[in-house]
Parts: sequence; structure tokens; C-alpha cells
Amino acid sequence: MKQRVLLRLSPGIDPHTHAYTTTGTTDNKFGVPLQTQGEAAVRKLMEAPALDLAGLHVHLGSPIFEREPFAKAVDVVFEFAAQMKRDHGFEMQEFSPGGGFAVDYTLDQHAPSPDDYAETIVPALKAACKKHGLPEPHIFIEPGRSIVARAGVALYTVGSSKDVPGVRRYVSVDGGMADNIRPPMYGSEYVGIVANRPLDERRETVTVAGKYCESGDLLLRDAELPPLEPGDILALPASGGYNLPMASNYNASLRPPIVLVRDGEAKLMRRRETYEDLTRADVWPLE
Amino acid sequence: MKQRVLLRLSPGIDPHTHAYTTTGTTDNKFGVPLQTQGEAAVRKLMEAPALDLAGLHVHLGSPIFEREPFAKAVDVVFEFAAQMKRDHGFEMQEFSPGGGFAVDYTLDQHAPSPDDYAETIVPALKAACKKHGLPEPHIFIEPGRSIVARAGVALYTVGSSKDVPGVRRYVSVDGGMADNIRPPMYGSEYVGIVANRPLDERRETVTVAGKYCESGDLLLRDAELPPLEPGDILALPASGGYNLPMASNYNASLRPPIVLVRDGEAKLMRRRETYEDLTRADVWPLE
Repeated sequence: MKQRVLLRLSPGIDPHTHAYTTTGTTDNKFGVPLQTQGEAAVRKLMEAPALDLAGLHVHLGSPIFEREPFAKAVDVVFEFAAQMKRDHGFEMQEFSPGGGFAVDYTLDQHAPSPDDYAETIVPALKAACKKHGLPEPHIFIEPGRSIVARAGVALYTVGSSKDVPGVRRYVSVDGGMADNIRPPMYGSEYVGIVANRPLDERRETVTVAGKYCESGDLLLRDAELPPLEPGDILALPASGGYNLPMASNYNASLRPPIVLVRDGEAKLMRRRETYEDLTRADVWPLE
Repeated sequence: MKQRVLLRLSPGIDPHTHAYTTTGTTDNKFGVPLQTQGEAAVRKLMEAPALDLAGLHVHLGSPIFEREPFAKAVDVVFEFAAQMKRDHGFEMQEFSPGGGFAVDYTLDQHAPSPDDYAETIVPALKAACKKHGLPEPHIFIEPGRSIVARAGVALYTVGSSKDVPGVRRYVSVDGGMADNIRPPMYGSEYVGIVANRPLDERRETVTVAGKYCESGDLLLRDAELPPLEPGDILALPASGGYNLPMASNYNASLRPPIVLVRDGEAKLMRRRETYEDLTRADVWPLE
């Protein structure tokens, strides 16, 4: 049988997100550079007896708050597809503009809606097909984060505080960089909500520190919050995306449980890890 | 019984390491600020009926390539201890200058030896005791990284390469940010060695990319290496410190095994994780 494949191209487009998660530029480990090596890759794939080149794929990065890069990617890829059709008889049956659809992590972010992205990508695609005389391909998108990020809320219990006079107030919680590496890794920001009294006035500026052994283990920097007391539950919404998949057992910590909540019902989806889980792979005594 | 405790102070000393791992400065989640709150903490601890304040502790950060900050910390802490003795009768029986002793990750780094650190800390301590008329306390150090980092060598298998003409060559390996978060997190550098032909001339400049779904997942940037071929074993020495303790299962990857090697003998210390390990904590069906 022939395996249907898409060719992933790096189209040389900067979507203006964090350098670590910008994936469609030319100086990048991902994708075949469209301008310089795209044609050779198409020819090679079309000549491969066991492969069926069904279409083209790009992924620009994540999260992408602008819509313009998607329209630009469509223009660049469809012009390339038309050239490949003319020169090599390539038929693009499938096209993927990738994912990277953004979500609001903070109150001042305004992620486009699914409709907004669609209203950018689809007209650009229709126009490009018309311009180049191409049939409209099937579109596949990768909306991962934009679906799951807001489905998850991280809950922390507040512990002790430390006031550094004239500098700042640190408030500790019982989690941190082991369950959410995003703030130290990308400088990611979140909005904290005190779950047990969500409407209290936000009249303090505090820095929320995780419990791990690094100074960079801060979940919120200079966050406006109600005065926090030990035992308060601090909720960080939009934690369903890259928190637990990137979680570690740093400082021999146990990864937290996941609870599914719907219509007032709560069900355990994943139990908290145990110390037995931590040592299960250890071989002792040595053989 | 009375619990013996040390008081951890932040002495306000910058050891010139990465901001995320600088722990002894004033604007920091760790320690009681010595200058502003140290005295109140000593008094509180001395008045606590169940505690016995045996001494003082500082930890400046890690890794610390300079020796001067340790001498400075001794000066600051012993002056404080003398003042606490005079004003509150505090006897410092134990003192810890913490850890953070450096190791060489790259060829141009030159970490002080254990002797170097000792020859800085001990004379500073003796001089401070003499100056303030204090008896010499027991010293406790925390040499973690400086012992274990060089005891571990990470081994990767080389996969495919990607040449971006005029930009750089990316070479992929079968690991990356899930087993070593240090390069994307702190910009940490390592020296790569091709284990199967270690003496080959380093005549290429390549960037070694991990297999994970982020552009920042690069183990080595612009590294001088012999030309790499698929199947080569790339060794990164000094990987025993903060690699696997901070490892994740990102992209549903399995954390690698650890093999103990000595005198030509190899023993498995920790087995590779299995997919069963990944899903063991999942609850299915939901109850």
C-alpha cells in the first residue's frame, strides 16, 4: 500500500510568539524550508514508490494572537503548490495551516475566536485557489491548546508569606515549577483567583512562589490579589494545556491528581502519584 | 524534646549566577532577610520552647564559580552572630555556608576545587571568629551538584539532520528538553562528545535539537563537533545533577534508564519507563 503523507514546510513566517514556540521561521528545527528546499522535497516524495504526497502542512508556532500570519502562510503555501502543480503535476488534496490558536491567559489578552481564525484562513484559501486556478483542498487544523487549556484550572493551597520590607511580599503555595514550568521557562503570565472568596477586592500586590528549590519558581509576579491567608485556595485558570504534560517530579514531588468536574459532580480522572510511583523503576538491590 | 534548628538567612549577597538560581539576595523567596528581619527571627526562635537555635545557614545560589561571595557571606553572618550573642546570648554552634559549588560544564569554565572553596571559607571563618571573639562553630556544606553532576553522562543516539542553507545545520537526537530542561530554561551549555569516535576532529558547527515539540528544545547551540551520522552516540558529560530529577514525560515520552558503570561492569540502576508507567495513575473507567 501507499502511505498518504503531508509535507511539513517552514514558510519563513514569524507569528510573533515566544522564540521557543515559534516553529515556522527559516532558522528552526521544524519543517523543510519552503523557499530553498521545498521543491526538492516535493519531487523526492512524489518519486517515492511507497508514499502518496496528499498535501502540505505548516505550523507557525503557539500561541498566535494575530490572524495575519495565517493568511500570509496560505498565500505562501498556495503559490508554492501552484508552482509544484505546474512543474511536477502535484495535486494538493489536503492543506493544514497547523495550530497555535491562542487562549486568554490574562485579562489583557484577547485571543481570536475560532470564528475569527476561520474567517481569516478560509477566505484567504478561497482567494488563493481562485488566483492560482487550484481546486479547494480539505483543511485540517490542530486546535489542541485552544480546546484544552481553558478546560483545566490549577488549584493551589496558600502557605506562609514572606515580606521583604520595601521590596515585595512573597506568598508560598504547595505547587510550582514541577507542575507548571511555563512561568520560569517562557515568562508566561496567569490571572490568580482566590477560589474560596473570588469577589474580594484585589488590593495587594504579591508574588506567588512555588515550593521548589529555585528562585525562578514563581507562578505569579507582582499579581493584584486579595490579601492571601494560609489555607486559601488559589486558582490559576487556563492550566489545561501545557502544565501536567510537562510536569516533573522535581525535589521528589508527587504529580497532582486531576479531577473532572461537571454539573456539580466531581470524579477523579488521575490519582495523585505515590512515593511508590517515584521509585517503581529503581532497581534495588543491583543485579 | 527540643528540636535543633538552623536559621536560614538571606544575606543580601549576589553570587553572579543565573537569576533563577540566585538564592541569597534580598529580593528572593528564600531565607529571612538578615539586615531587616534577622534579629527578630533569632529572638523568636530563642523564645520558642520547642526549638533550639543551633546555628545559622545561608545559601547563595548555584553554580557559583567565584569564591569571594562565600568569604563575604562568612563576614556578614559572623558579624550578625556576634551581635546576636552580645544582645541576646545566642551561641552559634553550627554554621552552614550552603552549597552551590560549581562544576565545569564547558571547556572554558574553571570551577574552583573543593580545596579552593575550603581555603576561602575556613580562613574567613577563623578570622571572623577571632575578630568577634566567637568560638569556631561546626561547618556543614551542601556539595550536591559538585559531587553528582560529573558522575552522570547523558547518552543520545543521533538521528536525521536538517541543513538550512546559509543559516545552520540542525542534528536531531532521541532525547531533549524532557530529560534535560536546563538548556531551554537557563541557557545552560554543555560539551558534546561523539562517544563512538571521541578523537575525531571537531570540524563542523551544528545545533543539536531534541525530539520534543518546541523550537527551544535544543541541547547544544552552534557546537563544534565531528560530522555526525545517524546512529552516532552523542555523550553530554556533567549530566548527573539536574537532568533526570527535573525530567518530564513531555509528548508522552518515557524517561530513560540509568546505568551504573564501574571498572568495565555495567548495572541497571533505574529501568526505562514503560507506557504502563505513564497511564498507571489514570482512572478508567471513571467511577
